[in-house]
Amino acid sequence: MPILANNPKRKTWIPTPVKTDFPIQNIPFGVFLTRDDIITIGTRIGDTAIDLGAMHQLGYFDGIPLTDDIFLQDTLNDFISDGQKTWRLVRNRISEVFDIENETLKNNEDHKSIILFSLDEIEMQLPVQIGDYTDFYSSKEHAANVGTMFRDPENALMPNWLHIPVGYHGRSSTIIPSGIPVHRPMGQTFPKGSQTPIFGPSKLIDFELEMAFITTDANKFGEPIPIEKAEEHIFGMVLFNDWSARDIQKWEYVPLGPFLAKSFASSISPWIVTLDALEPFRCKGPKQDPKPFPYLSLEGEHSFDIKLEVDIVTPEGVPTTVSNSNFKYLYWSMAQQLAHHTVNGCIVNSGDMMGSGTISGPTPDSYGSMLELAWQGTKPVTLNDGSERKFIQDNDTVVMRGFCDKNGQRLGFGEVSTKLLPVFEPKSIKNK
Amino acid sequence: MPILANNPKRKTWIPTPVKTDFPIQNIPFGVFLTRDDIITIGTRIGDTAIDLGAMHQLGYFDGIPLTDDIFLQDTLNDFISDGQKTWRLVRNRISEVFDIENETLKNNEDHKSIILFSLDEIEMQLPVQIGDYTDFYSSKEHAANVGTMFRDPENALMPNWLHIPVGYHGRSSTIIPSGIPVHRPMGQTFPKGSQTPIFGPSKLIDFELEMAFITTDANKFGEPIPIEKAEEHIFGMVLFNDWSARDIQKWEYVPLGPFLAKSFASSISPWIVTLDALEPFRCKGPKQDPKPFPYLSLEGEHSFDIKLEVDIVTPEGVPTTVSNSNFKYLYWSMAQQLAHHTVNGCIVNSGDMMGSGTISGPTPDSYGSMLELAWQGTKPVTLNDGSERKFIQDNDTVVMRGFCDKNGQRLGFGEVSTKLLPVFEPKSIKNK
Repeated sequence: MPILANNPKRKTWIPTPVKTDFPIQNIPFGVFLTRDDIITIGTRIGDTAIDLGAMHQLGYFDGIPLTDDIFLQDTLNDFISDGQKTWRLVRNRISEVFDIENETLKNNEDHKSIILFSLDEIEMQLPVQIGDYTDFYSSKEHAANVGTMFRDPENALMPNWLHIPVGYHGRSSTIIPSGIPVHRPMGQTFPKGSQTPIFGPSKLIDFELEMAFITTDANKFGEPIPIEKAEEHIFGMVLFNDWSARDIQKWEYVPLGPFLAKSFASSISPWIVTLDALEPFRCKGPKQDPKPFPYLSLEGEHSFDIKLEVDIVTPEGVPTTVSNSNFKYLYWSMAQQLAHHTVNGCIVNSGDMMGSGTISGPTPDSYGSMLELAWQGTKPVTLNDGSERKFIQDNDTVVMRGFCDKNGQRLGFGEVSTKLLPVFEPKSIKNK
Repeated sequence: MPILANNPKRKTWIPTPVKTDFPIQNIPFGVFLTRDDIITIGTRIGDTAIDLGAMHQLGYFDGIPLTDDIFLQDTLNDFISDGQKTWRLVRNRISEVFDIENETLKNNEDHKSIILFSLDEIEMQLPVQIGDYTDFYSSKEHAANVGTMFRDPENALMPNWLHIPVGYHGRSSTIIPSGIPVHRPMGQTFPKGSQTPIFGPSKLIDFELEMAFITTDANKFGEPIPIEKAEEHIFGMVLFNDWSARDIQKWEYVPLGPFLAKSFASSISPWIVTLDALEPFRCKGPKQDPKPFPYLSLEGEHSFDIKLEVDIVTPEGVPTTVSNSNFKYLYWSMAQQLAHHTVNGCIVNSGDMMGSGTISGPTPDSYGSMLELAWQGTKPVTLNDGSERKFIQDNDTVVMRGFCDKNGQRLGFGEVSTKLLPVFEPKSIKNK
């Protein structure tokens, strides 16, 4: 089915800023609370939020096989479950309705007053109920940087890294949308020079610049997803800040992997940009050597050219861009990750989320974490107000942005913005 | 509130085998499909399944604050969310209704025909929708055995092990109830003597004898659960077989922990035995040295004396008990696990499941996995038909049982039984 919604020439009657991440070619999906405190599924064009539940009730999706309440839900899981054909029909229809030549809704003030919201009237929610969340570790530069710092620069990559899209299971319950602040976590650490582990606030809070993809129901128990089919089961992507407590991680992670160092929070951008919308920005990923096993082999362009930026905003509100990276640097593709994840028969459900791992590029200004940017604290990052950062400080805000920009066409993810609060005052917990 | 349902002297009018795991003092909770293909929440006394949805509709829970449909659901999550007070009221009421002296239901043939089922009329389902699943690693004997085999017998335990209830996030989507067979998974391994990794069926399939507990909603984002309150948020326990592919695990698990080696399947017993029902079987856990941090310290009896057995049943149907262990051997208690899990502010939801880790005892016949029982294949286990096992073979069935037995009172979990099928024929996947 043609993705008519991607027509680069289409213009919309919705007033749209020039450099918006949300032109009519984007049509992402999200969940929001309206001015009437009703929860609905919506999309966004420019700075206008669009209530798809209301559009459906008013007949704008007539002819598309959808249940009556498909958009009147507090998560996108059921819509995602409807599958790729339905996503395409819905995006194509939205694109038509908001086409500058289409006067149906444009000239219906009553309908517009029900369907359209300004962004300050709505509150974005988590777009999916995440059943399982997996985090991969697919940036060769990041894995090599970490290996160089913590192990052996000569053997920075683990022996399995070039053969396996290494990943691990993460915690779904603490994935939060942009705007929700996060407390600095308490935990056990074993600082250098100490004779015993200590318990207290983490001192090394870091961000990880990642993206994540959201899947649909894809397979039955025991049945792998062939790599050729993998992308059909990917609904879309979000920006993903995988908050990390490096000191907790160091003490806890051998031999079973990161646990409390990660599970205190991960933040996502609230609009899911569909893989369909990203089609024009496909590109090849890095050359893979050695050649992957056949179950991981796929010819063609399976990465995406998505520019990524990270800002640290000081407590006083001064922003500094500390990293410029790109999704295309990732060594392992999403298709490879999904084929690998299911090769043992593991079930993937609608709303599952899979993080890319920290996306570091080849140059020091493209690293995706403070651990790498400040190189374990040895090269503090100077911010625009003259202050320095080795890691994230209380009341700093970390903002990640992502967008595609090609042949004059721009389309993006907006941002994920999260403030780090001081440690939660554990009134009821013994901490001495 | 007194747990009247635990009265050891109470007898029931339901015919009950002498050595049943399900006396009237148990009253576990599960979800089943009835002979009419209706899904309902139920309990079990002896070999009789009891439809709690029907009981509620017929008024047997009048006076207890419950929503009308609380038992007419396909998971226990909402009921578990109602909290400990409600669980107790419901168990106490069920206990009264089935008391040998209570003639209300006993003499009502119409109601009995609606409420009671024989076990062969029902099909047990997964009792909860598992949001997040965590697996701990809390048996000192198991951790030491693995450390001895794979690392250094002199330093078998990792430095963090005696300070932290080590755990990691697992995959919820492939937790299955007893009776569902599991395919031998495909995956990457790096066999001894090979120059490169290979792709194919795992050759080292193992069980792990574990138990798991199920939580209720317990805390807000960012707020730890104090250890004194932890047990209030534990609804109950099940037997847990954490299927493991040892060869896949060995190649993939450094540095981020086990992934596909575990996520192909974990099996649970379908009846959740409440922590309340287990009260009479409380006991102290092992002495802890060094003394845990205050957030992990709790005086009193916080383990449970639960006898555990593992059988391997050959394809021809010959059973052999290969392990006799006990839940009380675990070094870290469930309260410690839950307090640790949330000390960083991680949210725990209703229906989350937390595995104990393999429960190995001090003697070789009490080890909880084939890896340990056959000591890495060096001491094959001889079965009752004379055949030997280093790991689990295709068409073997692994059966785990657990029960308490004290002062003549017995109460248990039934079993979790899972057959290992040959590898799934990957017609659509390239495997050369």
